[in-house]
Amino acid sequence: MDRLWTNARLATMTGSGLGLVEDGCVAAIGERIAYAGPRVGGPPSAGEVIDCGGAWITPGLIDCHTHLVHGGDRAQEFELRLAGASYEEIARAGGGILSTVTATRAASEDELVASALPRLDALIAEGVTTVEIKSGYGLTPEHEAKMLRAGRALADVRRVSVATTYLGAHAVPPGVDVDAYIDEVCAQIAPLAAAGLADAVDAFCEGIGFSRAQVVRVFEAARAAGLPIKLHAEQLSNLHGAQAAAEMGALSADHLEYLDADGIAAMAAAGTVAVLLPGAYYFVRETKLPPVDALRAAGVPIAIATDCNPGTSPLTSLLLAMNMGATLFRLTVDECLAGVTREAARALGRLDSIGTLEAGKYCDLAIWDVERPAELVYRMGLNPIRSRIWRGE
Amino acid sequence: MDRLWTNARLATMTGSGLGLVEDGCVAAIGERIAYAGPRVGGPPSAGEVIDCGGAWITPGLIDCHTHLVHGGDRAQEFELRLAGASYEEIARAGGGILSTVTATRAASEDELVASALPRLDALIAEGVTTVEIKSGYGLTPEHEAKMLRAGRALADVRRVSVATTYLGAHAVPPGVDVDAYIDEVCAQIAPLAAAGLADAVDAFCEGIGFSRAQVVRVFEAARAAGLPIKLHAEQLSNLHGAQAAAEMGALSADHLEYLDADGIAAMAAAGTVAVLLPGAYYFVRETKLPPVDALRAAGVPIAIATDCNPGTSPLTSLLLAMNMGATLFRLTVDECLAGVTREAARALGRLDSIGTLEAGKYCDLAIWDVERPAELVYRMGLNPIRSRIWRGE
Ligand SMILES: [Zn+2]
Ligand SMILES: [Zn+2]
Repeated sequence: MDRLWTNARLATMTGSGLGLVEDGCVAAIGERIAYAGPRVGGPPSAGEVIDCGGAWITPGLIDCHTHLVHGGDRAQEFELRLAGASYEEIARAGGGILSTVTATRAASEDELVASALPRLDALIAEGVTTVEIKSGYGLTPEHEAKMLRAGRALADVRRVSVATTYLGAHAVPPGVDVDAYIDEVCAQIAPLAAAGLADAVDAFCEGIGFSRAQVVRVFEAARAAGLPIKLHAEQLSNLHGAQAAAEMGALSADHLEYLDADGIAAMAAAGTVAVLLPGAYYFVRETKLPPVDALRAAGVPIAIATDCNPGTSPLTSLLLAMNMGATLFRLTVDECLAGVTREAARALGRLDSIGTLEAGKYCDLAIWDVERPAELVYRMGLNPIRSRIWRGE
Repeated sequence: MDRLWTNARLATMTGSGLGLVEDGCVAAIGERIAYAGPRVGGPPSAGEVIDCGGAWITPGLIDCHTHLVHGGDRAQEFELRLAGASYEEIARAGGGILSTVTATRAASEDELVASALPRLDALIAEGVTTVEIKSGYGLTPEHEAKMLRAGRALADVRRVSVATTYLGAHAVPPGVDVDAYIDEVCAQIAPLAAAGLADAVDAFCEGIGFSRAQVVRVFEAARAAGLPIKLHAEQLSNLHGAQAAAEMGALSADHLEYLDADGIAAMAAAGTVAVLLPGAYYFVRETKLPPVDALRAAGVPIAIATDCNPGTSPLTSLLLAMNMGATLFRLTVDECLAGVTREAARALGRLDSIGTLEAGKYCDLAIWDVERPAELVYRMGLNPIRSRIWRGE
């Protein structure tokens, strides 16, 4: 053993609940977990031994849906809207998603990395060890690739795992024919996959985004390139995108406020994860709740993420996302904790290597000064992290 | 000059808006502001000079309504409720306000200080320089005084100003006659004032708390002892408590979801501050909004606070309270920023010494790495503080 965290309480997140171990330890060899379980019957003390004094250990947290890399912010738009400005006035003042596209195109890769770092650091400070980062504000081959390179580069300057997702089909660039743009998006997927820049492909299926047929074309190109798929679906209306995504084997469908029974059945059959984004629900003052009871009854896995983005969820706290999941969506404490560990790993297709405390997985840990795991969901604005371990240290 | 913060942008919060100064400086002599305004025409460089590099300076933030000192937490109750437990089951499991009373009585003064420190540190880390702390979970003379001493003691172990508020009339202790209890509360006020333990007197006017007539008795005792008054009013129903409080010259009436036009008129006439508590509104999933438009139209000053308490607002972020004030209550950015500075100072009766950047006031500053003050309200979970100055250092 290289390292042993002992005298700890564990939420291993194995099985379907929290996988609690009241008197446990975690041992690492190199960057992998060699043992996680009861102290009695565990490995002998060897290597570096860390006495956790009864603190709780969970898997390192996983934020499985973010737009962390982007240029600019939308604070002025937020301010104008509160002051009563109309959408037209905001557009005239340079607001809306196209303002983020303009700022992202204007930024260099280094500038994108620099501006994302405070956001990434806020997540890391709360125990995040893996973060998904989407493109989608470049909307040209050059600028989309720049965003994905910036996402990859973040993993070089911080001790964190990054999963990049190509979201070329996020919005239609101004002045471009939508079907021609979909052709361009599809054509980018194989080169991005070959360059190792994208771990998955995502799209925005919505009246203000892309139709189900257009999304299916993108997904077919992803399949041809060997990349898994995800979808922004049923956020503002029901285009049956989640169903189409699930039928094509999507890792996840995300948002889902307007998801119907057919979509739920398709997700359950495919094992597609429902990624709920309560920060966006809160920030845009949505009133239609995602169908949590029906998802739960159907056995659809549920994850929670920040959706960190400048327009609809400027949120950089996964702890707060959990609180919102509980308070606004009535997810249970167990569902919230699973949603940022085990099920978030599943939504990234990485459950074989992260998301639970099990021998053979990466030793990504969050160690917490709390009396019970529920405190991580209950409190708002308090960060009880004691330490965070990424790949064994 | 002992210290000069220069090359800064200022939100002085003087006047009725943000009191912006684009190229400003703040100078301190000892613990007081000697100058705050434009660099041109300001004092010459002398003493220690801090180049702020264009960062924004606001007054140190003021959390004017908290229950920061208390025993235990209610995470288990939160967990049980999400899992579908009834109120009776939660009461049987030891939940509810009386569980906090039991835990608070069981704790020593030192234990109360120790358990409050992580919460206080979270507030301080976001630029808070003054915090109000209420009693109200002791409900006996001995334990109420212990809570107030713990609040005072926090100011000895951290560089922060504490305003203590006696909230004996928070709940009726079990097995005690309510009018006899009010007698006891009234009898405590003069001794607490004489001992310097309370800066103000508060009460909870509600069907599950105390009647308006009982509250008036408490306020008369406060007046006799020379202490200012505040009131938890119109949170769950309209008992016209805010009106009664305003007519007696209250500093503030707090919560106010069910406030009516008569209450607003009385508050406007008296200059009583409306302290809005969006964290509690959010956490208990209240749907009745406080009458923000009518308060604004009547010219009632509006403050925002965390209401940090274990049962209905386990919130320790004043930045997040601002975001909730904007997102949930549609307060403007200017109102949110004034609500945690100038108007919060007014709600504590301390506007003569804190709450704005003006010569003669305490030099309590928060210095922020933001491009515009709106970012402080817009973001969720990001803390852009660069440094925090309390009484000149
Ligand atoms: Zn998204
Ligand atoms: Zn309160």
